[in-house]
Amino acid sequence: MVHVSRKEHFNAAHKLYNPVWSREKNEEVFGPCANENWHGHNFELIVTVKGLPDPDTGFVVDLKKLSRLIRQEICEKVDHRNLNVDVPFMAGKMASTENLAIEFWNILAAKLPSITRVGKLHSIKLYETPRNFVEYFGPQTA
Amino acid sequence: MVHVSRKEHFNAAHKLYNPVWSREKNEEVFGPCANENWHGHNFELIVTVKGLPDPDTGFVVDLKKLSRLIRQEICEKVDHRNLNVDVPFMAGKMASTENLAIEFWNILAAKLPSITRVGKLHSIKLYETPRNFVEYFGPQTA
Amino acid sequence: MVHVSRKEHFNAAHKLYNPVWSREKNEEVFGPCANENWHGHNFELIVTVKGLPDPDTGFVVDLKKLSRLIRQEICEKVDHRNLNVDVPFMAGKMASTENLAIEFWNILAAKLPSITRVGKLHSIKLYETPRNFVEYFGPQTA
Amino acid sequence: MVHVSRKEHFNAAHKLYNPVWSREKNEEVFGPCANENWHGHNFELIVTVKGLPDPDTGFVVDLKKLSRLIRQEICEKVDHRNLNVDVPFMAGKMASTENLAIEFWNILAAKLPSITRVGKLHSIKLYETPRNFVEYFGPQTA
Amino acid sequence: MVHVSRKEHFNAAHKLYNPVWSREKNEEVFGPCANENWHGHNFELIVTVKGLPDPDTGFVVDLKKLSRLIRQEICEKVDHRNLNVDVPFMAGKMASTENLAIEFWNILAAKLPSITRVGKLHSIKLYETPRNFVEYFGPQTA
Amino acid sequence: MVHVSRKEHFNAAHKLYNPVWSREKNEEVFGPCANENWHGHNFELIVTVKGLPDPDTGFVVDLKKLSRLIRQEICEKVDHRNLNVDVPFMAGKMASTENLAIEFWNILAAKLPSITRVGKLHSIKLYETPRNFVEYFGPQTA
Repeated sequence: MVHVSRKEHFNAAHKLYNPVWSREKNEEVFGPCANENWHGHNFELIVTVKGLPDPDTGFVVDLKKLSRLIRQEICEKVDHRNLNVDVPFMAGKMASTENLAIEFWNILAAKLPSITRVGKLHSIKLYETPRNFVEYFGPQTA
Repeated sequence: MVHVSRKEHFNAAHKLYNPVWSREKNEEVFGPCANENWHGHNFELIVTVKGLPDPDTGFVVDLKKLSRLIRQEICEKVDHRNLNVDVPFMAGKMASTENLAIEFWNILAAKLPSITRVGKLHSIKLYETPRNFVEYFGPQTA
Repeated sequence: MVHVSRKEHFNAAHKLYNPVWSREKNEEVFGPCANENWHGHNFELIVTVKGLPDPDTGFVVDLKKLSRLIRQEICEKVDHRNLNVDVPFMAGKMASTENLAIEFWNILAAKLPSITRVGKLHSIKLYETPRNFVEYFGPQTA
Repeated sequence: MVHVSRKEHFNAAHKLYNPVWSREKNEEVFGPCANENWHGHNFELIVTVKGLPDPDTGFVVDLKKLSRLIRQEICEKVDHRNLNVDVPFMAGKMASTENLAIEFWNILAAKLPSITRVGKLHSIKLYETPRNFVEYFGPQTA
Repeated sequence: MVHVSRKEHFNAAHKLYNPVWSREKNEEVFGPCANENWHGHNFELIVTVKGLPDPDTGFVVDLKKLSRLIRQEICEKVDHRNLNVDVPFMAGKMASTENLAIEFWNILAAKLPSITRVGKLHSIKLYETPRNFVEYFGPQTA
Repeated sequence: MVHVSRKEHFNAAHKLYNPVWSREKNEEVFGPCANENWHGHNFELIVTVKGLPDPDTGFVVDLKKLSRLIRQEICEKVDHRNLNVDVPFMAGKMASTENLAIEFWNILAAKLPSITRVGKLHSIKLYETPRNFVEYFGPQTA
């Protein structure tokens, strides 16, 4: 079993704000992240696929195809966007890095079979900053 | 002459949008950076001070004091803010990295004498992303 | 299950020296790391917590609280210190990166319930240099 | 169980080219990576060993010895070489990052007992670029 | 005066080999860099342009246009190529990082007026590895 | 004129402590950097040489020779050492990054003619941490 990873990036605005709560409660819980006029980040996204290399190509997955898939399915929908306002698949969800990673998994797990027969999605790693990051291994994980 | 540098960071939202122009013209010139709902970045800011080391301390400038000055005068005013909306010193200016660097210079050049007798401000380097960055050397530069 | 990580850093002096051995044996085993006058590093520390995101916040753990916990419980006790001399929880132990990671786990595993109900400590990753690093997953690991 | 890692690097040329296929098929599958005149990379290699620290040294494995082993057994054979032409253990195999990682595992798993009694090889992580990388956990993985 | 920089990258093979010299002399001077079967690198290229920001845009130069220019004029000609064999503008020159930077300057200095009226080329910085890099400031430098 | 740079590193202990002052004054001025039991850093050192490339080699300076010179003249004397105690050329000087850079310049400027006829020393850049660094351009600077 080999894990193969591709890193992409996007720049987006967001805020952490629970609309069920008062403004005071949001500021108490989320601090400056609740700023109503938004803030933003350079996100780094690492997608990892696992499988056995194909003997003809030496590849678990063609990284050019994986890069293209991530850009089409994720980056084009979030890059230079507002994650709370402009992104349909985040509607009604807190725009936390945790929730973004889960939604990215759902999108890519469904699309991955279109570019590889042998590779399975292993994880989504998402850096909000170089010091804050999350990793998601899917709904059932070892 | 020794150059001494301190790196700080902040996360902010902005858009590139000239209010004198139509929305079409803004999108033509600035592309996705003109998204009306904002986008954002993890900015990295490097402030460089030059001078001769003080024989008693070995310092051109005490970097703890320089760090504190940058945080108080810059980061507290831009971190987790919207650069077009929340930052008084950017009012009426395009929120480009170039203009941010110039404003940061103006603020720090005025305040630097409060923490060092021998050090002079040399440059403001500002990374919008790891691939896009600017450096400003002040109104008169060699 | 989502893994959430926070990176902090500290600068410290240490030496690798087993007091039961002769100086010659220490130099033979540890080489320049046994220098009796110490050497030091910029350590980078990544703490990873795992759990399911809270629906109200989107968080497994509030990273501002995790950062504060790591700084209070770890960094304030080791930053700008001598790991062999100044740090009570390392007394009587070899000041290796392996042993530091184990002690950091013990401290944080006990304190983590004070900041999160759902998150469990997953790992302690400690970089002594960008080329030498360790990761510890606790006393029982899969 | 502690994981201990050492990072080394080497610079090499290669191409992705299946000699059973026509030039057109190779260019269709591998794109510019099939350029017959080669291209190259700065590879970064991370070797991870796991075990319990030895009480006398605090070490799972002496990283100076691990570094020396990686350099002798891997880097001296691939650094400033052509991976398709100059490297006996890659003969007859596609020079993909996946296959390199598998061969590096086979070499190091056999040699590791010469430098550590307690440490077992855990993984080989190989960066072809900062954005494309693989990790291999051996023929039997958890 | 503001300096504005854009970073791009390419992967290429090369060797250092002076065809006027014997193979022995080449190996004596260039060591493993003279390997006749080539080696290669992930090059990082930083292009810096200087000028006064345009008041309408806040830009010295539109970095999207600068990125496109560098990719068209440089990266498409060197990426996944052999610098000694496949690149017409390096014909008859030693494929050193120094000479690459000079040729890149000559190409970009001629093309830059097509994308900016106010910006002048300031420097070409080229990383062959993270530890070996050059910077060229043009035929006349301050 | 081309600038050519080589990056090396070393790990060392030090403290900032002026022996003419009381302990209280030292702690007031230097804070935790005055800890009598030392602290330490992973220093990164970049040496830049400038000149015109030699037509036979394409080199301003052979970076293998520059690397060897830096390691022999600097790293072997400071790596895994205590900068206040173990390093003769720092005796009687504050062990600040500024003073280290000046001493490194003095050593390398004297030795550089032994490895290059055309290259002149341009600067010494020294990172104490990724966020604190200095650059020295020699006793006479443009």
